[in-house]
Amino acid sequence: MAKKASSRLEWRINVPDGTSKVLEPESGAVGKIWVGLKGCMGIIVLKVWRVLENAWHIGVADPRKVIHCIKVGLALSIVSLFYYMRPLYDDFGGNAMWAVMTVVVVFEYTVGATFYKCINRVIATFLAGALGVGIHLVAEQSGDQLKPIILGMSVFLFASAATFSRFIPSVKARFDYGAMIFILTFSLVSVSGYRVVELFEVAHLRLSTIAIGTSLCILVTMLFCPVWAGCELHHLIHQNMEKLADSLDGCVTEYFKENGSEKDLNKKMQGYKCVLNSKAAEESMANFARWEPTHGRFNFRHPWKQYLKIGASLRNCAYCIETLNSCISSEIQAPPCLRKHFSNKCMKASSYSINVLKELVITIVKMKKSSNIDVKVAEMNFAVEELVDALKSLPTTHFIATTTGEESTKAKAEGVEGSEHPSPIMKVLPLVKVVSMMVEIATRIGGVVNAVEELARLAEFKAAKDGKPKQNQPTDKLVADH
Amino acid sequence: MAKKASSRLEWRINVPDGTSKVLEPESGAVGKIWVGLKGCMGIIVLKVWRVLENAWHIGVADPRKVIHCIKVGLALSIVSLFYYMRPLYDDFGGNAMWAVMTVVVVFEYTVGATFYKCINRVIATFLAGALGVGIHLVAEQSGDQLKPIILGMSVFLFASAATFSRFIPSVKARFDYGAMIFILTFSLVSVSGYRVVELFEVAHLRLSTIAIGTSLCILVTMLFCPVWAGCELHHLIHQNMEKLADSLDGCVTEYFKENGSEKDLNKKMQGYKCVLNSKAAEESMANFARWEPTHGRFNFRHPWKQYLKIGASLRNCAYCIETLNSCISSEIQAPPCLRKHFSNKCMKASSYSINVLKELVITIVKMKKSSNIDVKVAEMNFAVEELVDALKSLPTTHFIATTTGEESTKAKAEGVEGSEHPSPIMKVLPLVKVVSMMVEIATRIGGVVNAVEELARLAEFKAAKDGKPKQNQPTDKLVADH
Repeated sequence: MAKKASSRLEWRINVPDGTSKVLEPESGAVGKIWVGLKGCMGIIVLKVWRVLENAWHIGVADPRKVIHCIKVGLALSIVSLFYYMRPLYDDFGGNAMWAVMTVVVVFEYTVGATFYKCINRVIATFLAGALGVGIHLVAEQSGDQLKPIILGMSVFLFASAATFSRFIPSVKARFDYGAMIFILTFSLVSVSGYRVVELFEVAHLRLSTIAIGTSLCILVTMLFCPVWAGCELHHLIHQNMEKLADSLDGCVTEYFKENGSEKDLNKKMQGYKCVLNSKAAEESMANFARWEPTHGRFNFRHPWKQYLKIGASLRNCAYCIETLNSCISSEIQAPPCLRKHFSNKCMKASSYSINVLKELVITIVKMKKSSNIDVKVAEMNFAVEELVDALKSLPTTHFIATTTGEESTKAKAEGVEGSEHPSPIMKVLPLVKVVSMMVEIATRIGGVVNAVEELARLAEFKAAKDGKPKQNQPTDKLVADH
Repeated sequence: MAKKASSRLEWRINVPDGTSKVLEPESGAVGKIWVGLKGCMGIIVLKVWRVLENAWHIGVADPRKVIHCIKVGLALSIVSLFYYMRPLYDDFGGNAMWAVMTVVVVFEYTVGATFYKCINRVIATFLAGALGVGIHLVAEQSGDQLKPIILGMSVFLFASAATFSRFIPSVKARFDYGAMIFILTFSLVSVSGYRVVELFEVAHLRLSTIAIGTSLCILVTMLFCPVWAGCELHHLIHQNMEKLADSLDGCVTEYFKENGSEKDLNKKMQGYKCVLNSKAAEESMANFARWEPTHGRFNFRHPWKQYLKIGASLRNCAYCIETLNSCISSEIQAPPCLRKHFSNKCMKASSYSINVLKELVITIVKMKKSSNIDVKVAEMNFAVEELVDALKSLPTTHFIATTTGEESTKAKAEGVEGSEHPSPIMKVLPLVKVVSMMVEIATRIGGVVNAVEELARLAEFKAAKDGKPKQNQPTDKLVADH
């Protein structure tokens, strides 16, 4: 498909060059305009084509987005039926418009977001409508002179207050949309009430059309391939955890490997960047998730906020991996003999750290308390201690060797590394940085473990069955896969 | 004010306890319900009070938010006038509703966001209206049987396509709101067109009411205390830069100081956290800023995207400061004698790094090319090199001393530090970490310098006047202030 298009594009771009040469002798200005126009057309077609190609990739990468679009079309088509059916139209008249509008505005990608908007819209419309009618009644009592003043003042006051409430973080997180609908409905009611006598009937009709729109949205969004914000958040968190583990693995392998860098490894190493940038997505999903009813393995009051804490602890790790990554890509490196000396212990510490992360991934995916997370954490800590011990014992082997001049003469003989007489500490420095980052990462993984354990407590995860046989199998398999 | 309220609250909470004791002997159940109700009331009043208190603090911290609320109230009151004025009402009728709705939906905090929504709304309404009328004409030609099918299909297709376009990042950044309005208008036109004969007149009225609403919004948002998204972004970036400088200063001072931690210092050190979390804010502001017309010192085509790059390079620095911060708060610290040895050189390197950051802040604030940024960068690099040299020369002074047993016997005699026989490398390790982080931070500040220079080139900053006299004065003053 892409091939076909590019050949078509080439044809379009090639034509101007061809024709311009023929036309130029006849009419210079017209020819130039013609060329310019064709060139513009070519650029526009190219841009549109790129957007379409981009869209195609997005659709292929996540077919649920395509399904969402079909759902929106479906909901709108269904709500349009109200218009085409005469008896219903006779009941609702022009107010049926509000059903269409509700569907367009309220239908969101995730169930939680749709619920949030539906509930906000219904409650805010009801509250603002009631308040508007009440103020309208008061204004009616105070005579024709005062009426516009009272109505105008009330619009000013309530609109300002509701707008300000949108700046308060706790209100913004839950009722931002509701505040906007409140302002909208209140001004419409108090303004239109000035003219329309049958205010109550209009209010009734409008509320029922909005109810029709919202219930249709909720039905469509929940019945056809629902996308739950809670599931998405759950998925995002354990996916990020896996990415961190992969990055750590990639970094350490890259540092201690002996051949050139592989492409696969490089891509794997960059996973932590997603973790660094996922805060906004996590927060909006957690906001929407709490509106969702019980679904799958998640209760209505699932502790979504704890996921944010896990996310924060993961980001904390990611900062360290970022620094580790910069250590690895720095130009000054420790001499190979030193690296070899530490290679095994570092790889061991990192693989135990990764084991802990993988175990946490399994805990979250299965939503069952892990029976052997304590063992894995202890293993990780032990490996890290061994690594630190190796670092401690370094001076007695390498430094003395250097100070007695054994290695420096060797270097002089080689003539390559020794040209600058690197002092012993500068030789060890890059390695020390890597090791200390490994230690710090292990500490921060401890923070992730705590956050996940807190989640297990809050969400009342059950203990995993058959602790023994599974103890070795799933994690090892996962580790082997990566 | 707060005092008055708390006494009122106490009274409310105290009352139930008092009355319940009197009531309980007479009617247990009623008394309990009474107590429960009063308790609930108390909690609700307390919560509402907290929200109000929160709102008060927000208003005091940024009075522009209060002004924004007044602006919204004002715009709505003005647009309500259309309803109260009989000749205008006779012209527009029920369609005047659309002006109110436009104001409510389109009025945003920043000028850029308001422009974005206004332009999107007008263009999308026009496009969707034209397309809807066109399809309606086609449907009318094909007979009564086919008409609802053609209309329904077109709604389904266009709504799905427009919904999908909102998933494409480049479309989402610029036309997200427009796509929604397109769906809304198209479905309303094609659906209501089924009944209403005077489609053209309705379209004309609706477009003109929307034009009235949007132009009113633009006028109000630009004339009364405008909040420009571009200025906000500009401000955020140089504020973040200053916060980074303060954090770095705070961290290094905290590490090398000799007394206990100060509260002020601790707060100053946490500034980098704002930098870590400001990505989403920067992106949305940059998106809105490009809709803004020329204002103040910013042209229409100011390179807002470059600000995002500066933001990214600042975050890059912040990751390092985060690690530096964790080094400082770690329990294991280098012995005081070693720290003293490095204190001066580290402080010097950090103060030169801070100088560079402060110079960049001045460049951005004044929007003038700095004449002495190169000198400051060179100074920073030189100080960092000195620091590295000091680290290089460390083994010849300290390690040999240790290996010859001089210090270990000393430690044994003291009996405090020497209890674990800390190996020499473990003594230096914390300091080595801090120093290597300092070096890394200086490297990353180099990245910030490049990004700011690129901005100066793109935005055609002029060279600062009177390079010489200012060279020493403003930066030193700024450094002295902090």
